[in-house]
Amino acid sequence: MKQIGKRDWLIPGGHMPVNSTGREPDFTSHDLIAVLNTSQKTANVELMVHYTDSEPIGPYVFTVAAQRVRRVRINDLIDPQAVPLDVAYALSIRASVPVVIQFTRQDTTHANSSTMGTLGYPLD
Amino acid sequence: MKQIGKRDWLIPGGHMPVNSTGREPDFTSHDLIAVLNTSQKTANVELMVHYTDSEPIGPYVFTVAAQRVRRVRINDLIDPQAVPLDVAYALSIRASVPVVIQFTRQDTTHANSSTMGTLGYPLD
Amino acid sequence: MKQIGKRDWLIPGGHMPVNSTGREPDFTSHDLIAVLNTSQKTANVELMVHYTDSEPIGPYVFTVAAQRVRRVRINDLIDPQAVPLDVAYALSIRASVPVVIQFTRQDTTHANSSTMGTLGYPLD
Amino acid sequence: MKQIGKRDWLIPGGHMPVNSTGREPDFTSHDLIAVLNTSQKTANVELMVHYTDSEPIGPYVFTVAAQRVRRVRINDLIDPQAVPLDVAYALSIRASVPVVIQFTRQDTTHANSSTMGTLGYPLD
Repeated sequence: MKQIGKRDWLIPGGHMPVNSTGREPDFTSHDLIAVLNTSQKTANVELMVHYTDSEPIGPYVFTVAAQRVRRVRINDLIDPQAVPLDVAYALSIRASVPVVIQFTRQDTTHANSSTMGTLGYPLD
Repeated sequence: MKQIGKRDWLIPGGHMPVNSTGREPDFTSHDLIAVLNTSQKTANVELMVHYTDSEPIGPYVFTVAAQRVRRVRINDLIDPQAVPLDVAYALSIRASVPVVIQFTRQDTTHANSSTMGTLGYPLD
Repeated sequence: MKQIGKRDWLIPGGHMPVNSTGREPDFTSHDLIAVLNTSQKTANVELMVHYTDSEPIGPYVFTVAAQRVRRVRINDLIDPQAVPLDVAYALSIRASVPVVIQFTRQDTTHANSSTMGTLGYPLD
Repeated sequence: MKQIGKRDWLIPGGHMPVNSTGREPDFTSHDLIAVLNTSQKTANVELMVHYTDSEPIGPYVFTVAAQRVRRVRINDLIDPQAVPLDVAYALSIRASVPVVIQFTRQDTTHANSSTMGTLGYPLD
């Protein structure tokens, strides 16, 4: 397998619902990113959160070990600052090695969950 | 971070449900685009709406400030003309600087919402 | 706007649910493609349906006028042969001019609909 | 039609729900990939499963005949080892000929199903 992916990714359409139904944390409404690192080196990841009416906040930092995938709930990002619910936000993400990133939302506002997913947008 | 994205984007699959369940405007059925501008300049955006049986309508114009994301509900576009519910439409979008665009639908026809999302199609 | 899109597209993940809930045809479970033609010429489109255990069937033919979008429900394709429900299928699509194609599923097996969408895969 | 697709694909966001509602196997919660082989040769496919805290497992092997599509439920992969429910996983997939791969999740944790879908990430 070739070393694959890109170092820079964008997710334009973030928005975490306020309400949830069901047992925490599995059924808490959330946005998440899944970061796959198929390289042989640890990926050091920096994530900036963009808003509509204020300056970007970050970087939020985490690592993904070699040959591993890591899911990061946006609801769980607290340092340097929690991402508020019910606001539009976007993510710009830079990793130290090529990765591939998928975005997923689980919305449990109602008794049944609703999900959506899309790949992020990679930079050439 | 490199200046990233593309100036031209297409969204083929627009269609806003007629019916909604729940409190307005949060639970109104809608299509929306999220436009992320990671550049250092304001993005001037022009959007054309394409239909099945009539000429394209537009441009609809709006701006996205530097380093900001903006969500635009298609239901809220009224100038030059509101986009009708329950018809197939598509979007062609041109920005003055590179941006990245995600499309999302929230369908609350029924008591539980249903969501879907996909990146737009960027022009090289 | 540049003339944009690609002439060849693939949709791997077709599958139409057997059951539906609600008024026909709006709430019939279906897969559909939305074909956006931003060129100045009519797009003549040929679509082949691929299956798991038998030869591809087609071509199914339709047109999309210049500067128009057209939604085609896979359930409505009958010539040369209807696409059966509850089987895995895929689409390969060739247009006479560059287009952009989005795939959407509406599943109303249950009283609430479930939707998903993704862009097709374009050929370079 | 040109021979199309890519030999290497990544799916970052795998996660199979524990619970299901409704008749097996149609309504069992699952992740699946749909692999479309439009070439004239059989595709020999090898799939590796990546986890968060342990080494990748695989290869899982299967074939897709020429001009055919095949859906593979991740729940059904058992050799060399079943993929556990309720854990984050990712897929790296290599085929002997160019293919196109779509990822779909059906979540029937609740009485109504929820679906999402996205193309995989192709390697150049």
